[in-house]
Amino acid sequence: MIKKNIPQKTIDRLAIYRRYLEYASEETAGRHFITSADLSKGTQVSAAAIRRDLSCMGQLGRRKIGYNIDRLCNSINSVLGLNKKWRVALVGAGNLGKALMMYRGFRKLGFEIVAVFDNARLKIGKKWLEIKIQDIRHIKDNVSNKRIEIAIIAVPFKVAQATADLLIESGIKAILNFAPIGLKVPDNIKLRSVDLATELANLSYFLTKKIR
Amino acid sequence: MIKKNIPQKTIDRLAIYRRYLEYASEETAGRHFITSADLSKGTQVSAAAIRRDLSCMGQLGRRKIGYNIDRLCNSINSVLGLNKKWRVALVGAGNLGKALMMYRGFRKLGFEIVAVFDNARLKIGKKWLEIKIQDIRHIKDNVSNKRIEIAIIAVPFKVAQATADLLIESGIKAILNFAPIGLKVPDNIKLRSVDLATELANLSYFLTKKIR
Repeated sequence: MIKKNIPQKTIDRLAIYRRYLEYASEETAGRHFITSADLSKGTQVSAAAIRRDLSCMGQLGRRKIGYNIDRLCNSINSVLGLNKKWRVALVGAGNLGKALMMYRGFRKLGFEIVAVFDNARLKIGKKWLEIKIQDIRHIKDNVSNKRIEIAIIAVPFKVAQATADLLIESGIKAILNFAPIGLKVPDNIKLRSVDLATELANLSYFLTKKIR
Repeated sequence: MIKKNIPQKTIDRLAIYRRYLEYASEETAGRHFITSADLSKGTQVSAAAIRRDLSCMGQLGRRKIGYNIDRLCNSINSVLGLNKKWRVALVGAGNLGKALMMYRGFRKLGFEIVAVFDNARLKIGKKWLEIKIQDIRHIKDNVSNKRIEIAIIAVPFKVAQATADLLIESGIKAILNFAPIGLKVPDNIKLRSVDLATELANLSYFLTKKIR
């Protein structure tokens, strides 16, 4: 039985266990079980937290034997929704958008960018990896025709909120935002943000403080 | 006067204000002042939090007039250490590393990738944007010769901790980690992590839960 609402932090850690299990199953041909102690060593999460997190999914390890690696990996994938393909729209064909487009890690996890949008005339119509950059005004049709479920926002700061509003109006329910702004979205929309500028500012603040 | 230890959340918000001020100063030619109410509208942070954050830096707005945009922007840059150039090493010349290399946003903020490292023979010696990919074993010499201050880790999961250890041994004090693992570093090292896989897993968990 899977618990209905798994806490945020547990979701984050499940993603980390999953990655380690994948690695462990490649590296240890022939080995089928992993203990919470091994998983703890590999992921640097405490064994107690691991057992608690996995019990959230109804996964019980066997005493002294541990968890079956493949079965655990499949369970986590199924809980996280990583056992299926997701269709993703990328909004913003600037240099960050291009970097994200070229990054094959998304596809490896099952997230495929199937449409790219921008509002700049010079970009619209060009092709990136066989995908034609489209006018942002066509996003609504695309979301329904191409059954797009997730959007990545990689537009400039000042148009990020308008872009999010448009995506939500088009039926998008989950957004990964790379624009350096706190976006406002309704409660029924899932928003995650990655702000590289803020990460860098934290590093430079730390280094500056040391020499100040 | 600048407070010695500014809280993490304030640093994050200062980075956001800074971005908005830059935009505001471009957009509003001739306008020199901004109120905390305007800044609040633009950044979606409450005006009270803004005033508190800015007072951390000893910046006081003038009643009814607000803050001088250029002066405030300069103060934030100076607190965050964004008024100087930082020399960055990129470790990991895979597809994520390439995306980060191509992303010009780092340079715009003053972070310049001056060296790239990998351990794969096939990659070593190749050039990315005029920078030759070097053997990871040469990192220590580079850190001192090129006065590298910050490293970006974009290596696979399983070698990420060893990479971090090597970087720290080489004298690096600040690390931006893109490998999906919680790295262990000493207290005197600043580590920030961006885990795209975990962000995506959160979105897919949310969408899966809705249809489960």
